[in-house]
Amino acid sequence: MSATKKARTHPQYELLYWPGMPGRGEFIRLAFEAAGVSYTDVSNEQENGRDIISALVFSNSKGDSDSNPPVFAPPALRIPGAGKNGKPLLLYQTPAILNYLGASLGLAGDDEAEKAWVLSHTLTALDMNNEAHDTHHPVATGKYYEDQKDESLKKAEDFRQNRIPKFLGFFERVLQGNEKEGQGKHLVGAKLSYADTTLWHVLSGLQFAFPKELEVRKKEFPALFETFYPSVQEHKGLKEYLASDRRMPFSMGIFRHYPELDRQ
Amino acid sequence: MSATKKARTHPQYELLYWPGMPGRGEFIRLAFEAAGVSYTDVSNEQENGRDIISALVFSNSKGDSDSNPPVFAPPALRIPGAGKNGKPLLLYQTPAILNYLGASLGLAGDDEAEKAWVLSHTLTALDMNNEAHDTHHPVATGKYYEDQKDESLKKAEDFRQNRIPKFLGFFERVLQGNEKEGQGKHLVGAKLSYADTTLWHVLSGLQFAFPKELEVRKKEFPALFETFYPSVQEHKGLKEYLASDRRMPFSMGIFRHYPELDRQ
Repeated sequence: MSATKKARTHPQYELLYWPGMPGRGEFIRLAFEAAGVSYTDVSNEQENGRDIISALVFSNSKGDSDSNPPVFAPPALRIPGAGKNGKPLLLYQTPAILNYLGASLGLAGDDEAEKAWVLSHTLTALDMNNEAHDTHHPVATGKYYEDQKDESLKKAEDFRQNRIPKFLGFFERVLQGNEKEGQGKHLVGAKLSYADTTLWHVLSGLQFAFPKELEVRKKEFPALFETFYPSVQEHKGLKEYLASDRRMPFSMGIFRHYPELDRQ
Repeated sequence: MSATKKARTHPQYELLYWPGMPGRGEFIRLAFEAAGVSYTDVSNEQENGRDIISALVFSNSKGDSDSNPPVFAPPALRIPGAGKNGKPLLLYQTPAILNYLGASLGLAGDDEAEKAWVLSHTLTALDMNNEAHDTHHPVATGKYYEDQKDESLKKAEDFRQNRIPKFLGFFERVLQGNEKEGQGKHLVGAKLSYADTTLWHVLSGLQFAFPKELEVRKKEFPALFETFYPSVQEHKGLKEYLASDRRMPFSMGIFRHYPELDRQ
């Protein structure tokens, strides 16, 4: 599963996330893959991957021996040489990792304004991602879906009827407003950013989790589904990745296909 | 309500948020106040404040005449001269605004590693903020609390029993791990950051919304509640702000005091 591509002058990034699922780690993978920059997907390349991530987040540590703070939840990213006194830097929180990597991967826009917008739109796409998760876990993250199914039915109905059109309508307008530069293919400016790859993955997940709902909604948002979505996945680095076995299927993570939560 | 303090060389920042409540705008206000940097709190300084924010987020616009994209939700920040072709820059999403402002307000740590950690911890504090909101709106953001009270009782129980100790335990460990530099007063490095002000406000809100729960929990997290919390509010800029009428009380926003959702 190693993504050993162009070496360039990048450090050997290490992604730390639960093995065997796209999850929130996928947003980081997509950025590396789009940029064609090598990274180690630690837990997917070792037998004891789950133990490594458990140790990272369940250890009750106060930080590591490299002066890094503890990690609240994965994904985390380790960057050799970038921390205190030339030690490895350890970061967590998806948007913080993407914001840190964005410029060096060439995925953060062309100036400070675009850099800020890329982070803004990424945060909004991740909010949609989190709300999609909450449709099957509206009451307690630590309990089973089956123990909160009644509440899930209500939450999913609200998500489908109110939140999906609000989010998709917003991104449709962002694409239209950036039409001259982005040609419907990019949220910000004239080239691919990590906002594009992040939104693309959320749209992919929504189509997995709510296929009936999305089949109807697609027609309302042509810029998103006729131009943006197919264009992003044709990007060279992403196309190679999506055809590889590094791209893991959706299953029982953030995006889950419970037919009863979809449009009836 | 204007915070006209030291002028320095900062642009005249304009905060755009719903009037009359702290809300997510408060995280931006606290950063300016801590830094002693002037800003205009647009909606609180005009009669038609609510209309201004409604027009910003409900207009279905594709962006403004200054080449800024549309805003998904407030807070937003307008920065004269910082956008395309010297026009005003308009940003949205609380963490993106804080990340943009952090360095120029002197609230983003001392180097790139600290800058990244400040954003990471801020995102985690804002996750706790969002989960606190969801205790009274677990099913549908657009419906009344009274219409989702049964679900709220379950969500709040999980939040109190599992999520509050998980979040507070994490930040307690961050403070302990940074004890040498931060002396329990700062999450990152040796000086105040926007992660500190953000966490401080969330802790303040939790004590308003869940007073009984927090009264018990406080004892478990002495670094947070005996050192960090009182120390941050003694910071010069914040102390002045908290004593001023610019600090708006909690009421029916993100943090709400429903006694039935608190520890019984």
